[in-house]
Amino acid sequence: MTESRPGAPVVVQKYGGTSVATADRILAIAERIEQNLLDTPRLVVVLSAMGGATDELVALARQVSERPAGREMDLLLSTGEQVTVSLLGLALQQRGIAAISLTALQCGIRTDGVFNVARIRSIDTGRIHAELDAGKVVVVTGFQGVNDTNDITTLGRGGSDITGAALAAALGADACEIYTDVDGVFSADPSQVPSAKLWREISYEEAIEMASSGAKVIHPRAAELCMECDVPIHVRSSFHSRDGTWIRGGTEVMERAEVVSVTSDSKIAKVTLREVPDEPGIAARVFQDLAQAGINIRLIIQSASSQDRGRITFILDLEFLDGVRELGKTWEEAGVASCCVVESDVAKISIVGSRLASTPGLAARMFSILAREGINIDCISSSEMKVACVISADCLDDAVLAVHQEFFPEPRNDAATM
Amino acid sequence: MTESRPGAPVVVQKYGGTSVATADRILAIAERIEQNLLDTPRLVVVLSAMGGATDELVALARQVSERPAGREMDLLLSTGEQVTVSLLGLALQQRGIAAISLTALQCGIRTDGVFNVARIRSIDTGRIHAELDAGKVVVVTGFQGVNDTNDITTLGRGGSDITGAALAAALGADACEIYTDVDGVFSADPSQVPSAKLWREISYEEAIEMASSGAKVIHPRAAELCMECDVPIHVRSSFHSRDGTWIRGGTEVMERAEVVSVTSDSKIAKVTLREVPDEPGIAARVFQDLAQAGINIRLIIQSASSQDRGRITFILDLEFLDGVRELGKTWEEAGVASCCVVESDVAKISIVGSRLASTPGLAARMFSILAREGINIDCISSSEMKVACVISADCLDDAVLAVHQEFFPEPRNDAATM
Repeated sequence: MTESRPGAPVVVQKYGGTSVATADRILAIAERIEQNLLDTPRLVVVLSAMGGATDELVALARQVSERPAGREMDLLLSTGEQVTVSLLGLALQQRGIAAISLTALQCGIRTDGVFNVARIRSIDTGRIHAELDAGKVVVVTGFQGVNDTNDITTLGRGGSDITGAALAAALGADACEIYTDVDGVFSADPSQVPSAKLWREISYEEAIEMASSGAKVIHPRAAELCMECDVPIHVRSSFHSRDGTWIRGGTEVMERAEVVSVTSDSKIAKVTLREVPDEPGIAARVFQDLAQAGINIRLIIQSASSQDRGRITFILDLEFLDGVRELGKTWEEAGVASCCVVESDVAKISIVGSRLASTPGLAARMFSILAREGINIDCISSSEMKVACVISADCLDDAVLAVHQEFFPEPRNDAATM
Repeated sequence: MTESRPGAPVVVQKYGGTSVATADRILAIAERIEQNLLDTPRLVVVLSAMGGATDELVALARQVSERPAGREMDLLLSTGEQVTVSLLGLALQQRGIAAISLTALQCGIRTDGVFNVARIRSIDTGRIHAELDAGKVVVVTGFQGVNDTNDITTLGRGGSDITGAALAAALGADACEIYTDVDGVFSADPSQVPSAKLWREISYEEAIEMASSGAKVIHPRAAELCMECDVPIHVRSSFHSRDGTWIRGGTEVMERAEVVSVTSDSKIAKVTLREVPDEPGIAARVFQDLAQAGINIRLIIQSASSQDRGRITFILDLEFLDGVRELGKTWEEAGVASCCVVESDVAKISIVGSRLASTPGLAARMFSILAREGINIDCISSSEMKVACVISADCLDDAVLAVHQEFFPEPRNDAATM
């Protein structure tokens, strides 16, 4: 085993909920870590809660509170990761491996203090370095940090990725490994598109766009953090040791695909405000109200056509449905709009790729394939690296298969299926 | 509602595992606290883990480690109380009651740092006072404290009682209320002896002796802490609002009973070392070995009879059975004893009372009633306030009923049961 020495390279590994869902899975991680220590003596391991544990805690909280949120909710949810890091610590020690399990407080992860959706502000890596110098594997609770009075704040769903990336950035790690239940980053969700292609390498920007448009690759903020500090990310399976997908910069030498991924998101809702008066400040008021209610907007669609005049449309996550319905009533009463229509039977399909903007005709190909399949496009939003279409939710699966087939053609095997 | 003002009297309430076992029970506590706030605006509430939760965590730990212990085990177990304090905080807030849930670290409970069996060294009550001054109910995790590097250390089984008592002492509370699933302190366990008598008041010393001899009244260390600071303890039911048993000093005006309680403990084992050489230092070695292995001895019985020469007998908790068996082998190999006999089919029955030493004949009455029932006394240990007999485990129930009937006679209702 390579000796752990101060200043030697660090690798950060993050294991998600399915990778720590049972005692057996945790034992498997301990075994994998023992192997990894042969090459990488300085290992920091970030864990999520056991798969399902967070949902159980939320269900408990709902039994005692109508809308559990705020400080106490974060204190509750943070127990999930505290359980997994303790168990992995015990499992490593059982194998004779020196290990220490640290909470966010114990390893100095400070946030801006916003409960339920905090952002990491700083990490005091003193204790982690000391424990690594002492030859220990450091196991850290993902998803959480503390404010200035040591109150626990969570980072929101997918927050363990952010913890892993922030630690990798703060420690100047050689790599941030994201262990998951799939083999890496695909051209589409393999459970939706069996022929989806596994990428060996994509850019940070592509990963961020894919994640933002619904792919469950990695939290977009995590990819941003690693991009800022130029730490390569390796998304890989916790069920075998083959390489997955590397996310990193400087991929100019590679032969790049035009479209890297077809992603989809069915957990969205569409809100349309009709007959909004043509007065200054109305749109500002709408989005201020949304921000104050803690409702994140994914997409704002502005349409220039004359019959749509005075209309504001936006897309948000399904979880904010109740909140936006309440706001809608107040807007109608205040004359902000004649009517606030909330639709939850919509979905979003996107194509993502670095060369989208520089390759004409890709968006058109997407629209025409949807048209050929008889799928109506409700609204469109595009950016330099992405084209997103909002469509009816019940067309989503067909749409994803058809669009993926267009950009990643596979010979149809009709004869075999007759 | 009386206004909360700095310096007003504080009451500490501690709720055990059965009192927080379900969401419904936690809602019931929130309701009770709302009532209590009418009289006592400054409330500090200490909670145990949900009944069964600690056992589940231990079971999980055993799946990843043969003998889970130490630092990581404490980090794991401490999640149990973190869950209940969060839930009660949410439930109180749902009722519109200002409340804050604090972990041991957040409310400054410092221990000596010994994992799994830590002792509280100090409590920095600054934050608790600040939150009380702000008009909040303060909900605190029982059973835990932190060391100088903010690592979590637990206080051992029943440790939430200790947290409650230590907080009551540090805050100079008017009372430390111990909420439980029984009505108070009885002359015997009511599940064993249906006619057991509920006491309105007992002394600290009696409570300590009863607890030490197996009664599940309150942790003896908790009673000690309250005794030192003269904080009255009120042991009462969380299922109704009737008074339970007060534990306090200065009870000289009361008419005192000679025997206050018949207690029993079946979770013990007896160890006998035979043919121990008559050399200095042998006994010291035996008990040093036990201490190093973390095995607590409940009772050491020295017998002066000539045929018992060279024999050492001691009683320990059943949980240490495996540990003492291993030590026994090493002692046999090292010639410390010819043979180490471990018996787990034994039990202990005790009578407890402040006036035991000053009332001749009480011990003799106990021995003779056991003899009349044909129960063989294996060994005897007595102190100023207690007489304990080790007997065969399968006689224990009969022994408790008979001894209780002797000291708390009740007309036998034979006709009715015919």
